[in-house]
Amino acid sequence: MDINSQLNHLRGSANVTRKVVIGGVEFGGPDFAVIAGPCSIESEQHLLETGKAVKKAGAALLRGGIWKMRTSAESFQGLGKDAFSFLPEALKSLEMGIISEITDPRQIEILDPIVSAYQVGSRNMHNYALLTELGKQNKPILLKRGFGALIDEWIKAAGYAEKAGNQNIILCERGIRTFEKATRNTLDINAVVYAKRHSPYPVIVDPSHAIGIAELVPDVALAAVAAGADGLIIEVHPTPKLAKSDGDQTLDFAQFENLMGRVNRILTAIDRKLIHA
Amino acid sequence: MDINSQLNHLRGSANVTRKVVIGGVEFGGPDFAVIAGPCSIESEQHLLETGKAVKKAGAALLRGGIWKMRTSAESFQGLGKDAFSFLPEALKSLEMGIISEITDPRQIEILDPIVSAYQVGSRNMHNYALLTELGKQNKPILLKRGFGALIDEWIKAAGYAEKAGNQNIILCERGIRTFEKATRNTLDINAVVYAKRHSPYPVIVDPSHAIGIAELVPDVALAAVAAGADGLIIEVHPTPKLAKSDGDQTLDFAQFENLMGRVNRILTAIDRKLIHA
Amino acid sequence: MDINSQLNHLRGSANVTRKVVIGGVEFGGPDFAVIAGPCSIESEQHLLETGKAVKKAGAALLRGGIWKMRTSAESFQGLGKDAFSFLPEALKSLEMGIISEITDPRQIEILDPIVSAYQVGSRNMHNYALLTELGKQNKPILLKRGFGALIDEWIKAAGYAEKAGNQNIILCERGIRTFEKATRNTLDINAVVYAKRHSPYPVIVDPSHAIGIAELVPDVALAAVAAGADGLIIEVHPTPKLAKSDGDQTLDFAQFENLMGRVNRILTAIDRKLIHA
Amino acid sequence: MDINSQLNHLRGSANVTRKVVIGGVEFGGPDFAVIAGPCSIESEQHLLETGKAVKKAGAALLRGGIWKMRTSAESFQGLGKDAFSFLPEALKSLEMGIISEITDPRQIEILDPIVSAYQVGSRNMHNYALLTELGKQNKPILLKRGFGALIDEWIKAAGYAEKAGNQNIILCERGIRTFEKATRNTLDINAVVYAKRHSPYPVIVDPSHAIGIAELVPDVALAAVAAGADGLIIEVHPTPKLAKSDGDQTLDFAQFENLMGRVNRILTAIDRKLIHA
Repeated sequence: MDINSQLNHLRGSANVTRKVVIGGVEFGGPDFAVIAGPCSIESEQHLLETGKAVKKAGAALLRGGIWKMRTSAESFQGLGKDAFSFLPEALKSLEMGIISEITDPRQIEILDPIVSAYQVGSRNMHNYALLTELGKQNKPILLKRGFGALIDEWIKAAGYAEKAGNQNIILCERGIRTFEKATRNTLDINAVVYAKRHSPYPVIVDPSHAIGIAELVPDVALAAVAAGADGLIIEVHPTPKLAKSDGDQTLDFAQFENLMGRVNRILTAIDRKLIHA
Repeated sequence: MDINSQLNHLRGSANVTRKVVIGGVEFGGPDFAVIAGPCSIESEQHLLETGKAVKKAGAALLRGGIWKMRTSAESFQGLGKDAFSFLPEALKSLEMGIISEITDPRQIEILDPIVSAYQVGSRNMHNYALLTELGKQNKPILLKRGFGALIDEWIKAAGYAEKAGNQNIILCERGIRTFEKATRNTLDINAVVYAKRHSPYPVIVDPSHAIGIAELVPDVALAAVAAGADGLIIEVHPTPKLAKSDGDQTLDFAQFENLMGRVNRILTAIDRKLIHA
Repeated sequence: MDINSQLNHLRGSANVTRKVVIGGVEFGGPDFAVIAGPCSIESEQHLLETGKAVKKAGAALLRGGIWKMRTSAESFQGLGKDAFSFLPEALKSLEMGIISEITDPRQIEILDPIVSAYQVGSRNMHNYALLTELGKQNKPILLKRGFGALIDEWIKAAGYAEKAGNQNIILCERGIRTFEKATRNTLDINAVVYAKRHSPYPVIVDPSHAIGIAELVPDVALAAVAAGADGLIIEVHPTPKLAKSDGDQTLDFAQFENLMGRVNRILTAIDRKLIHA
Repeated sequence: MDINSQLNHLRGSANVTRKVVIGGVEFGGPDFAVIAGPCSIESEQHLLETGKAVKKAGAALLRGGIWKMRTSAESFQGLGKDAFSFLPEALKSLEMGIISEITDPRQIEILDPIVSAYQVGSRNMHNYALLTELGKQNKPILLKRGFGALIDEWIKAAGYAEKAGNQNIILCERGIRTFEKATRNTLDINAVVYAKRHSPYPVIVDPSHAIGIAELVPDVALAAVAAGADGLIIEVHPTPKLAKSDGDQTLDFAQFENLMGRVNRILTAIDRKLIHA
């Protein structure tokens, strides 16, 4: 038995991770996938340029906000419905699926033809009404951990969608709030390892929000790979300084490509492969 | 100038607290009001018995969950629609308004004829879709602080409802999550004082959730009164040990009556009066 | 039975607070005492001026740093031995005892003729070697809670001094570290109430460090009084803006006098009296 | 340029990590070292058996408590002076250096002939008197991060020893306190990456304390390797269930050997080598 087989044996059959497929990309199996793209979709050109670059570097899926959750009602809230005029065509030409955040059950109808999976953001992890509605349809759900939520509550929140009928749930650790101020959040790498053992869900990591400092994102991303995460979701923008949101934590194309080379080397060392788009 | 006038003078005109009226009871003015009742409404008899007791002891308004937010989808979720058969009559006979939690924008229609104010719970503080919908109607909103939310985010969350048109917002501090484990949460008494100075909203305190231990609830409730909170919201049950939720932090009638006597003495010392139902 | 007798009855005999006397001032009994003074002693003139003012306003004891714990080795570390030339005479003329921080067991010998009690600071709460040495002498110990310490660890840290032979210990809550950034620390008012019930020690509160914003110090100080604390320790300086450390959280003489008037009114409401120097 | 050279280039010359040598083992250079051993030294036989096993598996240095910091004065406090009768001979026969915790400046004299480096524990990170004394001698200092300390305070605490004359300092991240309860502490992997960039010190990780659950220690240990830590310090015991302290987080020999195989594979992937004893 090689090391990973031993590990799986150690976990026992009760802890086998469920396989969840988003747009043809499997999470929770032997291989590993990266979701990348901008915090918010800013224009068709912006999405196409970013999509081509991250796909070339090895990303399997796109991320991109249509409606953004913002602390202040006065901040940029995303393109909203304006994005729907170009999104279907753009995704078709990129041949990539997209994951986008949903903030209201009433958005399901309009998002359904566009997205390959729904992201429930950190601030909505406890929004059980939303989770229950998402549980009534079949598209996968990427459930970010609430920044103030216990691991146990995160797993149980997934149970709201599951009880309503949807088993296609992926957990995403994106950093919790602690007393530390030098970094935006504190990546709870323990939680990744713990949730892999104590839940049936694939677990991925968002290093961009978890540390909030672009030049430090790659090192924590590698930590997540080595700890056994099933994937990464990373913010990438052609010119991070000009991004309409989250620029400080966003990689440019060269940084992302460099990171993907390093991810690949760690994956090889743990007998996993990168899934391409 | 007496001490409170000096205090208001010190605050300056920019920091005058807005007055918000719930069922005829004013919060944010010179006087002080207590909201009391069970965590969840368990039956008509249960509500009537509790309502009479808390009213007699000096509570101005009732609290009581109809739908409960629970960490697990398997826990008791409240009576839900079953409560609507007896609630209007019961409240009429008690001559008290009730504040109850709303967890989904689609509940507004059914709750509107019953409640005097909507409570947005700690887990929904960041649910901006819900806050925006509540902002489109006029009933007051009791906005609990997210247990992982910054004071600044709490005040800005209120801005979502206000931007949609509703100025009748009261903030409620109910404890935050910290490393301390001996108490259920950590009552952030600093936040009460800070939000009074840095927001236009009345601020009340929920000592029941904030400490989570019934015998210690009264002492922290008094702290809130002395710190300048505009009211309290307290869990009371005829027999806390038999409560369907939150029994450990719930006062019985005798404990509540004793607390109200102590609250009254502190109020007198700071030149405020208790508003009765 | 009046309210406080009822309260004590409720607590039961096991929870009777021990009485600890510092320089003739009793903590933990029916009455209440305030310790006030500068963060650091800056000069003889500075100490005398501050001492007279706080005594007149009702403080029973002085506080004042001789050696200061500072995060950076480059910051002002206190007057150190230079203070010993004038301290005995100054305290004699003020007729007040002083409490000062000890950071090294080897300072006991030099501090012994000066101080009425030793303060063990938040950063040294876990310094069991220091606590053990202080336990071998009889002067009272004011044990500040570590800003990252559980209530249980705080009480057990006192046990190190007690095991070595010194029962004269007072606990001081001074705020803990949480995710909140608007205030310097988070005053854990729950901890005051909890430690009063679950330890034999008197508990006092340091509102200056606990909130870190001078204009908000009085309101949280009143919260501590109402919650049942046995005393307060407050930073006061003739001109806070010129203070060599902690100026942002320090009251001037007028603010302190105003606060003491408000403290007195709350004390009257809970049947306690202020102990004067 | 290979990936690591690029990384170093990216860091710039200001961020070159200082090299610190403990018992012939270099930390902070191109290679990587593991320190392993029991929480507390329980007997000569216990130390010899553990030392042989961890050395064979690839550990470069021993760890082992002589005096233990315990929350309660009543818990097992380590063998203390009893260990000195066998330690010099045991270490000589193992041909390994040992790192042990120091809790009082007065222990330097007795520990000096035994230890290759002094560990300053999490609870003493703010004990500047101790750090200053250790700064006056030349043996390396392993400075654990306080569980409630900011990264900035941790780096500045090292400055106390450095100001006193000792540059041989290694930082050790061992988990911080957060609201999460499922794990003993929260490994702050961000802090490892941040401290590597913003301090001149080598940074190692203690996964045993950081997660506190033996079966999850290996996965977080690998995360630390991938994130760029310069070493690991791991608790190993012949029979963890019988350990006098920290048994729940301690690996047995087989688990440690398995982990070392996995560490080696990650090291190869990032062009680093394991330093053997």
